[in-house]
Amino acid sequence: MSGSNIFYAQSGGVTAVINASACGVIETARKIPTMGKVFVGKNGILGALTERLIDTSKESRRDISMLKHTPGGAFGSCRYKLKAPETNQREYERLLAVFKAHNIGYFFYNGGGDSQDTANKVAIFSQRAGYPVQCIGIPKTVDNDLPLTDTCPGFGSVAKYVAVATEEAGLDIASMAATSTKVFVLEVMGRHAGWIAAASALAQKTKGDPPHIIVFPEIVFDRAKFIAQVKKAVRSKGYCVVVASEGAQWPDGRFLAEADQKDAFGHAQLGGVAPRLVDMIKQDLGLKCHWAVSDYLQRAARHIASAVDVAQAYAVGEAAVKFAAAGDSGVMTTIERYSVKPYRWRIGKVALAKVANVEKKMPRRFISRSGFGVTAAALEYLRPLIQGEDYPPFKAGMPQYVRLKNLLIEPRLPAFEPE
Amino acid sequence: MSGSNIFYAQSGGVTAVINASACGVIETARKIPTMGKVFVGKNGILGALTERLIDTSKESRRDISMLKHTPGGAFGSCRYKLKAPETNQREYERLLAVFKAHNIGYFFYNGGGDSQDTANKVAIFSQRAGYPVQCIGIPKTVDNDLPLTDTCPGFGSVAKYVAVATEEAGLDIASMAATSTKVFVLEVMGRHAGWIAAASALAQKTKGDPPHIIVFPEIVFDRAKFIAQVKKAVRSKGYCVVVASEGAQWPDGRFLAEADQKDAFGHAQLGGVAPRLVDMIKQDLGLKCHWAVSDYLQRAARHIASAVDVAQAYAVGEAAVKFAAAGDSGVMTTIERYSVKPYRWRIGKVALAKVANVEKKMPRRFISRSGFGVTAAALEYLRPLIQGEDYPPFKAGMPQYVRLKNLLIEPRLPAFEPE
Repeated sequence: MSGSNIFYAQSGGVTAVINASACGVIETARKIPTMGKVFVGKNGILGALTERLIDTSKESRRDISMLKHTPGGAFGSCRYKLKAPETNQREYERLLAVFKAHNIGYFFYNGGGDSQDTANKVAIFSQRAGYPVQCIGIPKTVDNDLPLTDTCPGFGSVAKYVAVATEEAGLDIASMAATSTKVFVLEVMGRHAGWIAAASALAQKTKGDPPHIIVFPEIVFDRAKFIAQVKKAVRSKGYCVVVASEGAQWPDGRFLAEADQKDAFGHAQLGGVAPRLVDMIKQDLGLKCHWAVSDYLQRAARHIASAVDVAQAYAVGEAAVKFAAAGDSGVMTTIERYSVKPYRWRIGKVALAKVANVEKKMPRRFISRSGFGVTAAALEYLRPLIQGEDYPPFKAGMPQYVRLKNLLIEPRLPAFEPE
Repeated sequence: MSGSNIFYAQSGGVTAVINASACGVIETARKIPTMGKVFVGKNGILGALTERLIDTSKESRRDISMLKHTPGGAFGSCRYKLKAPETNQREYERLLAVFKAHNIGYFFYNGGGDSQDTANKVAIFSQRAGYPVQCIGIPKTVDNDLPLTDTCPGFGSVAKYVAVATEEAGLDIASMAATSTKVFVLEVMGRHAGWIAAASALAQKTKGDPPHIIVFPEIVFDRAKFIAQVKKAVRSKGYCVVVASEGAQWPDGRFLAEADQKDAFGHAQLGGVAPRLVDMIKQDLGLKCHWAVSDYLQRAARHIASAVDVAQAYAVGEAAVKFAAAGDSGVMTTIERYSVKPYRWRIGKVALAKVANVEKKMPRRFISRSGFGVTAAALEYLRPLIQGEDYPPFKAGMPQYVRLKNLLIEPRLPAFEPE
């Protein structure tokens, strides 16, 4: 579809580097004469449904290049999952109507498993509807739970943040433990997969270094065993650093953090594993504890992003455009590790149908026998992903993050109300 | 006391730059021929009482220089306050006995208000006892609550961390607010003074930028007013970022975060303002919220330290040695701001007696009329303190923080049990 415009959208929870993928898409498309403009959905796919399309051709080259070091989602993201076309034909038809109205021939969807599923459905639907749109998925998720890619852009930077935070807080508590705090609990993201918690082990330079305990969602939580581990660490080291995944679960599948509140979708709202664990430690051992919940700070921490992660985030966006220009559709760009030592990666691709709705958890062989640590194999996998620093430029003491103009193009269709 | 040795100790909560002060002390003393060795208390002043003295002459020049970029307290710190000599003569006599046994003529105490008070008492006691020790206080506290110094080393780096975290998390929630989280609450340190929370305002580049609400310990908390502010921000911006001081208080003086638990000293253990505020927002407005508690991460975050703070931390240590060499005693080194625009600072000194037990809170003129923000005067004061980056060296993706050998010298006295 020579000369067609591109529609790009960010989906789901944002990361420190999702804008680097956007930068890769926009900069690459600008260099290819057969590619039209890059339109971006205001607040993700909702922007396509409501015909609120940001015209990136109005943004300066400099501002677009600054996306590479700006965290968050510069165009707005959304938590909105298109249902299957069978039950929701109206929204798919609307998408195609908007794409047609703006001569859009390419759909790049930057997100996690749900988004890859949507991209696949749009590809199939548009084909059947006689207006084939080339759909390419661009991986993104701090949870690192997409299959068939070595890693997911966004994860490496959270991994680095968590490893650095664990080392730094570990030095702090080690200084205080003689007369004050004995246990520090850091809560990190990861609702179903423990990759982020696992990355804290990269802080260990010598045996016995923090973290002393990692609580994974993959391992059923056992209070007695956990308390015994805390006791052991405090006895041998004088203090204990715990890194706990927000998705830590009781044997019956309830989250440790589960409160009475549920979110709008009826999901239990997480965030609160750390104080819960601290309560147990105080009750059972009477030790003084401190705790931190890093929440958005971890996934927004562009200031301590991994250079490898930034490069990969850019590359999966860049490759999406190149694959599309070469005629591809129905694929997600991937990262392939083709050499372990030294670490070498390249871009690959995989059929969207194979990615959709598959969740890659930590394999058991990456978790130590006790269930509270990681193995050498896990460290070998994780370490390359946090390599290199890629500091944003600073001015007057603060990082220089770009705020785009985000000008919308004139709508051409009647208004539309999403479900 | 030519040729006398130095005793240096770290006290209270550690910071990202307290080791830079230690570095300043040790490197400067090594250059002055009339100064003896620098001994450091293992776990602060407890190391002096128990005669556990670390011999820094056993550390390499390189390792000592690495202290400048290593967070935490490299020799161990402690929460231990010497009572007044009138009620506690035994401990003061022991201190002098240890000082005599190891030819210690200088006492450098690196800490907050309590430590300056102790340094002053030791100066007076040693004088009266006929073994005058030159006592110099070196300021340190993330809380920024010491009087008679423009700022306290440790604060500038926490301020920078909190400002950067607020900007980054603000970009994150701004991306998500259309369909997901509407309110983000970041809890920061500051039990009695709101300096750290105030620093989050440095994230504001244009009017309306996060943080939209700052909760100070200096301003009595009013739930209705707070909720109204949240509502207003969400209505006008689509989302709301709140930065709350752990010391936020109800009209009756209770901490918002006060749980049933008390710490070993009967103090209410804090940490939990953020979830408390989130509960209120959910109850009153039914909005989806996220929250973070930065706890130790903020004061250990050497990776995003302020270059000005690092330089000042080093300088107050360096100056302590120079003042001592020139015969001073009973003083604390201070930072003097002698030019506002451009910002210029130099080292000064002040009598310990004037510093001891005075707490510098945020002046009311630094807090906006609403009580939920800061004034231009506050920003003018704060902004210079976060200037410049001073990244630690990284290797294999992680910061290179030093672990000293910390070899103890042979005790010469009988064992001693502190109170």
